[in-house]
Amino acid sequence: MNTLFAPSALLPSGWTDDVRLTIDARGDIAAVDPGAQPDGAERLAGAVLPGMPNLHSHAFQRAMAGLTERTGEAEDSFWTWREVMYRFVGLLTPDDLLAIARQLYAEMLAAGFTAVAEFHYLHHDPEGRPYADRALMSRAIVQAARDTGIGLTLLPVLYVAGGFGGKPAGAGQRRFLNPVDQFLRLTDALAREAAGDGQLRVGIAPHSLRAVPPEALRDVVAGLGRIDRTAPIHIHIAEQMKEVEDCLIWSARRPVEWLLEHAPVDERWCLVHATHMSEEETAALAGSGAVAGLCPTTEANLGDGLFPLLPYVAAGGALGIGSDSHISVSPVEELRWLEYGQRLAARRRNVAVHARGASTGAALLAHALDGGARASARPVGAIAPGKRADLVVLDPDQPLLAGREGDRLVDSWIFAGNAPAVRDVMVGGQWVVRDGRHHDAERIARDYRQVVKRLAAA
Amino acid sequence: MNTLFAPSALLPSGWTDDVRLTIDARGDIAAVDPGAQPDGAERLAGAVLPGMPNLHSHAFQRAMAGLTERTGEAEDSFWTWREVMYRFVGLLTPDDLLAIARQLYAEMLAAGFTAVAEFHYLHHDPEGRPYADRALMSRAIVQAARDTGIGLTLLPVLYVAGGFGGKPAGAGQRRFLNPVDQFLRLTDALAREAAGDGQLRVGIAPHSLRAVPPEALRDVVAGLGRIDRTAPIHIHIAEQMKEVEDCLIWSARRPVEWLLEHAPVDERWCLVHATHMSEEETAALAGSGAVAGLCPTTEANLGDGLFPLLPYVAAGGALGIGSDSHISVSPVEELRWLEYGQRLAARRRNVAVHARGASTGAALLAHALDGGARASARPVGAIAPGKRADLVVLDPDQPLLAGREGDRLVDSWIFAGNAPAVRDVMVGGQWVVRDGRHHDAERIARDYRQVVKRLAAA
Repeated sequence: MNTLFAPSALLPSGWTDDVRLTIDARGDIAAVDPGAQPDGAERLAGAVLPGMPNLHSHAFQRAMAGLTERTGEAEDSFWTWREVMYRFVGLLTPDDLLAIARQLYAEMLAAGFTAVAEFHYLHHDPEGRPYADRALMSRAIVQAARDTGIGLTLLPVLYVAGGFGGKPAGAGQRRFLNPVDQFLRLTDALAREAAGDGQLRVGIAPHSLRAVPPEALRDVVAGLGRIDRTAPIHIHIAEQMKEVEDCLIWSARRPVEWLLEHAPVDERWCLVHATHMSEEETAALAGSGAVAGLCPTTEANLGDGLFPLLPYVAAGGALGIGSDSHISVSPVEELRWLEYGQRLAARRRNVAVHARGASTGAALLAHALDGGARASARPVGAIAPGKRADLVVLDPDQPLLAGREGDRLVDSWIFAGNAPAVRDVMVGGQWVVRDGRHHDAERIARDYRQVVKRLAAA
Repeated sequence: MNTLFAPSALLPSGWTDDVRLTIDARGDIAAVDPGAQPDGAERLAGAVLPGMPNLHSHAFQRAMAGLTERTGEAEDSFWTWREVMYRFVGLLTPDDLLAIARQLYAEMLAAGFTAVAEFHYLHHDPEGRPYADRALMSRAIVQAARDTGIGLTLLPVLYVAGGFGGKPAGAGQRRFLNPVDQFLRLTDALAREAAGDGQLRVGIAPHSLRAVPPEALRDVVAGLGRIDRTAPIHIHIAEQMKEVEDCLIWSARRPVEWLLEHAPVDERWCLVHATHMSEEETAALAGSGAVAGLCPTTEANLGDGLFPLLPYVAAGGALGIGSDSHISVSPVEELRWLEYGQRLAARRRNVAVHARGASTGAALLAHALDGGARASARPVGAIAPGKRADLVVLDPDQPLLAGREGDRLVDSWIFAGNAPAVRDVMVGGQWVVRDGRHHDAERIARDYRQVVKRLAAA
């Protein structure tokens, strides 16, 4: 048993002073005692929040960040960006992926993300041939999470087709492809290896309605039920208007509408992006129990559009945040610009809160912790008994946070400034970041730089 | 004479290797020699860019950041935010302003802003009575700039009325008010004191068409011409739709339209925000030679709306960036979200560049350096003989920048990640930031924290 004493902590009931936390040998919170004495406990340097789950990541894209911010020959869009991404994919070895994911996860931890759901589609070698160990690339992700200490929800991706109606996949997609039965064997093997590991959970990600035809979607969801009845299911959906239009041509249904009609969408599901929804779809998704996986910085970088946040939240919808393509790795930038996008569209302030006198920062944080935890399918996102000891300690010496307490502290963290404000980070009872630095940052960055320089020269 | 050697430098002609810079005793660049040898020069740690001018600042608002991110009793807007700001204004002493501005300017320098145009409207004591020295609050701004080393364009603000048509000012505005003749005497005194100081320039800021009736605007512009014929003139304009509507009711003209018809708008002018313009206003402003002063983070925080960037840039308009209310202090976040706002609206990528194969980061940087320098009316914004030696050295050890050179380095700085990437900053030939830290950061932060804690308790 390890004990911590927080001068101030964000508990499910709100900000509370003098909180003593007891953490068991597995890294779970065993007890939370408000109004306690420090006694022999380790005293935290500042106010403590639950660590933030990052519900959508394509780790390898971290190394592409900054390489696509220029025009090509054609008008630039998500679809031209995807061509650049496919060329980049063709260069990566398992060791490259390990080095990139380690750097990314160390950055996530330093920014306050304590768990990540990795939407992992890079399975095969550059020619599209399975590695001798079909789980080789998946193991690189698991290894990167273990090496850095971040909690992981591994979502191997099912990718079958190149477009709606079972269009054949292109050469750029050959590293992603698996038949459903092969994919389920991979998932089963990974899930067995993860059993009992408090830091790891395995689910699946049918890539999108473009890449997974109806029968494959039905079979993979049924197959997952035989492996783990409560495992998470993530899917990309309605990110681009072209995707909505193609889906309408194919099925006479919009993507979210089609999915809600044809799949058993419930609390296990995370619909990533869901940017383009009708009023009916918005209300139906909010009522389904699924989580909307919002990635505001990537959705802005790719010119996707704005999620209908206000009606969705008003209808009780769940949401979380992901850094997706990792052109930003920060819960602050995701939450800040989730709100700002809505303010720009609505031309008023503090739009994401409905209660008078409520704090926008605290409301957004609560949404993202709750939805992020559900999409991770791990006991995280709250400082409470039975949850993982995933903690973020804000830096009391950061001038931006001077004189700020409680919800105003959260508002100042989310809505003021750019200086790093996270001081210490614990995941599963282990300190992984101290004084703003990941414990292995230097070695991880050295390996990463070598890989990126080789890729940049290729 | 001081000499520097840069492995790579962004010159007006583009990225250039092995550049030797000679800096004279005044802090101006005397010579730029590409393809040179290091000889005895001080070797810079990484690629060097011109320092960025910040063309719009209300320094005191830095201490409010994070305090207004909650709903009030009424629907929240710019106008309810302004009420909170007015209450905050009532608390500030000259020493408070000095401590807050010092903290802000030190943060600007560490982020890569090497000059600031301070739109300074807090002239009198909390009761609205002039201080014995009418320039007391202005001197606090000048002192903060000198103490931190940032270049300053001081713009004392003329504030006469509380709304269109000469509506009387309210109690919240009493610290701002001056009759035109009094204001011109203040400006003249400040301009005389600044003469010959390479770090300082004085201009004026008629606050807005709301606060400055036509005859006062005419008189103050004419009066400035007698003090300094090339001094800069900044004005808030067309930030909110309500302002456009009120202006239409008052004059049957939209704000930018009215200004272009009634004032001698030319290269001296900076129109801050100019968010809401018709196509005709956009083209006319672009052709006027004036700079559009864009503040994307504040304009998002306040729910103002999106500037018509694409037609404005296509018509050859000049623009620069400002951090305004300082809920963010970073050229990266301003430029990134200036572009992203447009991508979200247009639903495509790399919208701010018109040339095929061009870098969006480099194009945005060039615009903001050029427009920022013009709005500052100081010789900054380029690494060239005769310009101030205002330099930003990017951190070659930052993993985000690994393997990136030239325009891709700029793209990666602007469009990837959140970790601080500025290593060293020189202003007017003096190093003010080394290894990411302002040389006096600790003392400045200590004073700032004391002030903010007192204000938070008030």
